[in-house]
Amino acid sequence: MKRNVLIIGAGGVAQVVAHKCAQNNDVLGDLHIASRTKSKCDAILETVREKGAMKVDGIFEAHALDALDVAATAALIREKDVQIVINVGTAFVNMSVLDACIETGAAYIDTAIHEEPDKICETPPWYANYEWKKRDLCAEKGVTAILGAGFDPGVVNAFARYAIDTYMDEVKSIDIVDINAGSHGKYFATNFDPEINFREFTGVVYYWEDQQWKETTMFASGRDWDLPVVGTQRAYQSGHDEVHSLAANYPHADVRFWMGFGEHYINVFTVLKNIGLLSEQPVTTAEGQEVIPLKVVKACLPDPSSLAPDYTGKTCIGDLVKGTKDGQDVEVFVYNVADHKEAYEEVGSQGISYTAGVPPVAAAMLIAKGDWDAKTMKNVEEMDPKPFFTILDQIGLPTRVEFNGEDKAWNA
Amino acid sequence: MKRNVLIIGAGGVAQVVAHKCAQNNDVLGDLHIASRTKSKCDAILETVREKGAMKVDGIFEAHALDALDVAATAALIREKDVQIVINVGTAFVNMSVLDACIETGAAYIDTAIHEEPDKICETPPWYANYEWKKRDLCAEKGVTAILGAGFDPGVVNAFARYAIDTYMDEVKSIDIVDINAGSHGKYFATNFDPEINFREFTGVVYYWEDQQWKETTMFASGRDWDLPVVGTQRAYQSGHDEVHSLAANYPHADVRFWMGFGEHYINVFTVLKNIGLLSEQPVTTAEGQEVIPLKVVKACLPDPSSLAPDYTGKTCIGDLVKGTKDGQDVEVFVYNVADHKEAYEEVGSQGISYTAGVPPVAAAMLIAKGDWDAKTMKNVEEMDPKPFFTILDQIGLPTRVEFNGEDKAWNA
Repeated sequence: MKRNVLIIGAGGVAQVVAHKCAQNNDVLGDLHIASRTKSKCDAILETVREKGAMKVDGIFEAHALDALDVAATAALIREKDVQIVINVGTAFVNMSVLDACIETGAAYIDTAIHEEPDKICETPPWYANYEWKKRDLCAEKGVTAILGAGFDPGVVNAFARYAIDTYMDEVKSIDIVDINAGSHGKYFATNFDPEINFREFTGVVYYWEDQQWKETTMFASGRDWDLPVVGTQRAYQSGHDEVHSLAANYPHADVRFWMGFGEHYINVFTVLKNIGLLSEQPVTTAEGQEVIPLKVVKACLPDPSSLAPDYTGKTCIGDLVKGTKDGQDVEVFVYNVADHKEAYEEVGSQGISYTAGVPPVAAAMLIAKGDWDAKTMKNVEEMDPKPFFTILDQIGLPTRVEFNGEDKAWNA
Repeated sequence: MKRNVLIIGAGGVAQVVAHKCAQNNDVLGDLHIASRTKSKCDAILETVREKGAMKVDGIFEAHALDALDVAATAALIREKDVQIVINVGTAFVNMSVLDACIETGAAYIDTAIHEEPDKICETPPWYANYEWKKRDLCAEKGVTAILGAGFDPGVVNAFARYAIDTYMDEVKSIDIVDINAGSHGKYFATNFDPEINFREFTGVVYYWEDQQWKETTMFASGRDWDLPVVGTQRAYQSGHDEVHSLAANYPHADVRFWMGFGEHYINVFTVLKNIGLLSEQPVTTAEGQEVIPLKVVKACLPDPSSLAPDYTGKTCIGDLVKGTKDGQDVEVFVYNVADHKEAYEEVGSQGISYTAGVPPVAAAMLIAKGDWDAKTMKNVEEMDPKPFFTILDQIGLPTRVEFNGEDKAWNA
């Protein structure tokens, strides 16, 4: 049984991960959190203490760590006898943290694909550019690495697997729909680090159709979705990690990702993009200062974690999966609805961070218990979804299913 | 007779000034152009040579100069025996260049009010915060200083004076309307230095009504104007230099300035402003770099001088002046229409730079000839407008008048 967890990162998602680990420290053992800026870790631990989140007495320590430094990360893992690493730092550190896990034998969990700071939107499938290159090494060394175990990617991959296994003989299409019907009350803000958030939308939008990669651009392909709780919402085809693993694992299905955007968001995004302010390439000011515009936009926008106290409304994220069963067409919508205010009251974060931060803790618990201790590298749809849903039901993200006009808990 | 001109600045307006000075160097004598970056001056002189703009053989030299350095500016004035300085550099250097003129006795001409880099939209009347504090000193030393001698401020001040002197006993209101009905074909661009351009719109909009300063905000007060040549155009009350001198010289009149904006401009401006990207206050990036957002926006936007080759369409700038004559209400519209393409063909600049750059050369010619050699500090409405219009007619900006349903040349 693996225990003792190191959380990498100290943003809004890390805060949720910290609280959820604390609430389940009977399963997870000693807890550690590390980031470049230790004070941000200390602030998270302070909220853990305020909420009395630790289930049983135990260790929860903060550390300063440059997660790009493989040796330093490995040393911390060894020193604290860490057996599970939950990486929710910036997407730029995935490969160095993974290397430290491979070196030490610790299990690795992340919630988003690796990115290089100077590259946007590489060729698909994205995982093949970085993570999957280490798959054989993980298998050889018996290292468990669960890739993309947030909500999307993560829970939505499990939704797809579950829908296919349970409701159909053959899958024809997987459409993942991510709607945030909440309101933060600011003129404009991103729900994640703006630098990562905007990078999702500035490149080519890849999707998988007719057994091949196809391309579109952001906001070019929009569709209204009629969804449980949040009602009719417009969403646009976007590039997203899970399309790249689901297309590899279900190559005969069409795989698309749809993200909800209001007109205001699209307008602001369009203005910033067209002017060049979302560029990660440096510009030189008249005074000769070299600056990356996107970093300045980030500095001007609200810190995503500051949105939580006033965030209201709900998110709805789910998979519409279509296929055939006994020769008949079938479709099923597997989904979760989360509430911003409830998330804030429980862990001090908004709903977007909550949906991203709870699942990797569920994955860590499954590794700790042995269910998901794969001893190799896996994407979430390659793991049994049922124990995952069972823990998510218990720790705050229940799974529901719409099928044949009926809406019910997945295990009802 | 004053002669020998030093042009300060090397932007789009300076290019027009250089060409117009060259075309009239029989009146203006030796010509010099100075800027921090000498290569920009050299590039302007190259276009002067290409167009064969020099009317008679003569000197036109480029110099490197930090115009904030009063001693260096005075030294250059003395060394080259300059008697007229046309300051079309950034608005931040007005006071240092003026000081150099007062020190050396050279006549001073500018086209915009002084600004301090760290202040936006100071209390009205703006001239009283800087320039007018030197009025007594100019009078005492017999130094001619013509303030705000571009188009607006500048020609529009003369329009007001002319309308009042010619058509009425008493003035009731002066509404200055500035419409650029041209198109540069870019997603977004400013026609002047974005840093100065946006600063005009980010502060309080001051206007003079009922013999007092009143305040509004940018884009809060809009009105459709039916204008010659350019047709019906929407313009918004904006803060502008000339309101501040006209209100002092015609305190019984209401004085307002209206600038034309399309919906697209307003949308982009609103997004940038609301996010904080038009701020001149530094922000700190996640990496610890201190950056002024407005300077980054400027670096991302097209260089205004790069717009000229593809600019098409016309500008219309004029004054609607209302008052009474022999007890009857009268109104008159005094205006000019300029063409972007014609401006580019003549001097290699777009129409906005053309309208701003031609008038200070007319003012310099009037100082050289003695008509406007005031031996003290004056705003343009304090000078006789007729010789000004006469030169402007000859050098590219003819004045027209709409009165009693008739549209005619001012002197027809």
